[in-house]
Amino acid sequence: MAETISPTAPTAALPMAEPESAECCVPPAGRPSLGAEAAVALAARFKALADPNRLRLLSMVAAGEDAEACVCDLTEPLGLGQPTVSHHLKILVDAGFLTREKRGVWAYYSVVPEALGDLATTLTGQLGSAR
Amino acid sequence: MAETISPTAPTAALPMAEPESAECCVPPAGRPSLGAEAAVALAARFKALADPNRLRLLSMVAAGEDAEACVCDLTEPLGLGQPTVSHHLKILVDAGFLTREKRGVWAYYSVVPEALGDLATTLTGQLGSAR
Repeated sequence: MAETISPTAPTAALPMAEPESAECCVPPAGRPSLGAEAAVALAARFKALADPNRLRLLSMVAAGEDAEACVCDLTEPLGLGQPTVSHHLKILVDAGFLTREKRGVWAYYSVVPEALGDLATTLTGQLGSAR
Repeated sequence: MAETISPTAPTAALPMAEPESAECCVPPAGRPSLGAEAAVALAARFKALADPNRLRLLSMVAAGEDAEACVCDLTEPLGLGQPTVSHHLKILVDAGFLTREKRGVWAYYSVVPEALGDLATTLTGQLGSAR
C-alpha cells in the first residue's frame, strides 16, 4: 500500500545554502552556512532594527501594559512628528516585529514576541558558534 | 573600619532611559524603555548585521572549525573581491562580532559568541515583552 507522504518540505524561514553554492559553503565542520536568499531576508529584518528611533519605539511598545501601546503615546517621547513616527512604526510592522490594530481613532501597536525570539535564536545559532 | 567599596557602577552596554526622559519613558507598567544613547549604540550593532554579505561572512566564520576562518577561504564563496570582503569583515570586527588575528600572511577571523548572545538577550528582553 502506497504511503501518502505529504510534501512537508521544511520551507524554513532561513533556508540553508543553495545547492549551487553547496561546494563552497560547506566548511570542514560540515555545517552549511547561510545561503544568499536567506541572508537577504535576514538582513532586511536587521535593517528594520538598525535605527535608534525604531528601537526606542519598539522598546516603548514592549514596555507598555501587555506589550502594547497607543500611537498617541509614542509620538511625544521621541520629539518626532507624527508622520515620522508612523513611518518608523510601519517599517517595524512590515518587518514583522509589531502588529497594528485600529481602535476608534487611534492605532495600537503590539510586540510580536516570536519575531524577536526567532531572530535571537538565529543570532545564537546559525550566526553564532552553537552546534 | 571603612569598607572600601570599589565604584563598580554598572556601566552597562545598554543604559536605561536618561534621567531627563524618565517622565516620558516610564510607561504604566513601570519598565523603563531604551534611552536615546543606548538606542544609538544598539542600532549601530544591528546596522553591522543589516547586510546580506556580512551575514553570510559571519555565518561562514561561525560554521568553520572552532568558529574560525581564514580570510583566504571567505573571498571566493561570495563572488566578491578581496577588498570588499575585507571591508565587510572590518565592519563586523568593529561592531564586536568578530575578532581578527594575523598569522603569517593570512588573517583569521573568529566569532565572538558573547556579542551575539548579548544581542539575542536584548532582543528577547528589553525589546521583547519579557518582564
